[in-house]
Amino acid sequence: MNKEKTQAITSLKTAKGQIEGIIKMLEDDRYCVDISNQIIAAQSLLKKANILILRQHINHCVKEAIKEEKGDEKIDEIINILEKIIQK
Amino acid sequence: MNKEKTQAITSLKTAKGQIEGIIKMLEDDRYCVDISNQIIAAQSLLKKANILILRQHINHCVKEAIKEEKGDEKIDEIINILEKIIQK
Amino acid sequence: MNKEKTQAITSLKTAKGQIEGIIKMLEDDRYCVDISNQIIAAQSLLKKANILILRQHINHCVKEAIKEEKGDEKIDEIINILEKIIQK
Amino acid sequence: MNKEKTQAITSLKTAKGQIEGIIKMLEDDRYCVDISNQIIAAQSLLKKANILILRQHINHCVKEAIKEEKGDEKIDEIINILEKIIQK
Repeated sequence: MNKEKTQAITSLKTAKGQIEGIIKMLEDDRYCVDISNQIIAAQSLLKKANILILRQHINHCVKEAIKEEKGDEKIDEIINILEKIIQK
Repeated sequence: MNKEKTQAITSLKTAKGQIEGIIKMLEDDRYCVDISNQIIAAQSLLKKANILILRQHINHCVKEAIKEEKGDEKIDEIINILEKIIQK
Repeated sequence: MNKEKTQAITSLKTAKGQIEGIIKMLEDDRYCVDISNQIIAAQSLLKKANILILRQHINHCVKEAIKEEKGDEKIDEIINILEKIIQK
Repeated sequence: MNKEKTQAITSLKTAKGQIEGIIKMLEDDRYCVDISNQIIAAQSLLKKANILILRQHINHCVKEAIKEEKGDEKIDEIINILEKIIQK
């Protein structure tokens, strides 16, 4: 597994742990502003994981596909992801 | 527990399950664009949970604090959260 | 006019100038990545203006309405804006 | 000029008009929540323009560069833009 994927898994595992913590905070009736701040922190970890995944995807899969003259479909997929992310 | 908190827990549990699935997708070397799309879906669930938490917080805690003339601190907290969310 | 509104107008005037520049860049067939970066910069200025507007609105109008026991409607408006911003 | 660029200019001109309107709203001391909603609408137009610019850039410049075996630099630029947009 490449370095970016390993880092993405670390971010995702941390995010998962945070979300478990947030669920517990809700069950324990903890203060909502603290809960909201934890949700924002978990969102940042997901963003980080997404950047890592997309960066290595573009650097490996997309560039390779291009070399084999199969780049068009990969490029269309990147456009789709980009549109989704901008519109969020 | 109020309705919004119950719904937020449901969203968070679904997000947690998705993140477990995403980690497995990475370990199984699944296609990166599918992984990225799953991350975006998990982010939407966290956003939904955050809206639910903040809505009920403002409707209950903030309004109550205001009635007891202790609203100022709550209002400042809302401004802080709002700034964080806009800047993300 | 209060300080935040004056600062917001400055940000908005700068954003307006940037957008005029971006339109000219497109008409002059300038490099698209530079154009995209300029659009992102203009978006940051709009975010900054929105924070300034909302901060002073909450600090002045909302708090004042609360003191006059007319806070509920203002609070509902803040929830609506917050939901729009989170879902973007 | 291609269709996407023409549409982007239309969006940008509309955004510029909206921002002029927002500045006037501030000068006229109009209601802040209405101003904030107008800022959010202008942001949506900038997002739309950015999608149009990036879509045609990737479909034309990037694909062409790839065919001429000069794709690597273009791909790196796309990664940079993607990271900026995700982190916003």
